[in-house]
Amino acid sequence: MPHQPGCPLCSTDGGALVWRGARLRVIRADEAGFPAFYRVVWSGHAAEFSDLSAPERIHCMEAVTVVEQVLREHLAPAKVNLAALGNMVPHLHWHVIARFGWDSHFPASVWASAQRERQPAREAAVSAALPAVEAAVAARLQAMY
Amino acid sequence: MPHQPGCPLCSTDGGALVWRGARLRVIRADEAGFPAFYRVVWSGHAAEFSDLSAPERIHCMEAVTVVEQVLREHLAPAKVNLAALGNMVPHLHWHVIARFGWDSHFPASVWASAQRERQPAREAAVSAALPAVEAAVAARLQAMY
Repeated sequence: MPHQPGCPLCSTDGGALVWRGARLRVIRADEAGFPAFYRVVWSGHAAEFSDLSAPERIHCMEAVTVVEQVLREHLAPAKVNLAALGNMVPHLHWHVIARFGWDSHFPASVWASAQRERQPAREAAVSAALPAVEAAVAARLQAMY
Repeated sequence: MPHQPGCPLCSTDGGALVWRGARLRVIRADEAGFPAFYRVVWSGHAAEFSDLSAPERIHCMEAVTVVEQVLREHLAPAKVNLAALGNMVPHLHWHVIARFGWDSHFPASVWASAQRERQPAREAAVSAALPAVEAAVAARLQAMY
């Protein structure tokens, strides 16, 4: 799966790099209102999850699982949301999002309409924990892959 | 992971049953505007994907992959969307949704605001193909699991 000209996830990391391996990377996305919003981005240009081989799918989802587990351990979110949509950027990337009962959209999806005002102090408290989250994600992925 | 009182996905199938195995089932959801909207529902009451063991995660995602592959082969969608959100019903279920450039929300997520009017004739054409889709999903899962 070579890189594809014009694809933003082939030409840029797509966010703040947390960890990069041979087959995938983890980035922190900058999505207003969702401070713990990460993406697992497959390195090669694959549009659909089922474009990966079975071993690649396992490799990919075990990385998604590591991010989810670290978010749960460090942030105790109400829920973790996982999604591979790719309608706008058809290059396989998994959204891994810690959701909180107080966040602006909960329990709606992050792509739906806001349910309430944002809470800057609570968002800031989550942001303060992200260096430890990201160190843990990087350490576990480095040990696995 | 025993069943949990009050959980709608413990007490009902949650949609039109396509296939049921020992560890998961596939249902067709009835979501207006998205005729090819399926869910892979884990049988046990697990809230998060990472509550499953590693072999269970593989089992689950290979079923998701089968549904995605059959949707691609039969319907040639613009994109397949995969998501495990569970904010409203925290019982692990994977949305597997065939998306089309003409659908009411594309390229936005199905949880976002509509982008255009629905197209009943095109939706009906997709619906007409679903019996074959579902027969193929059931046959492949039965052969695998």
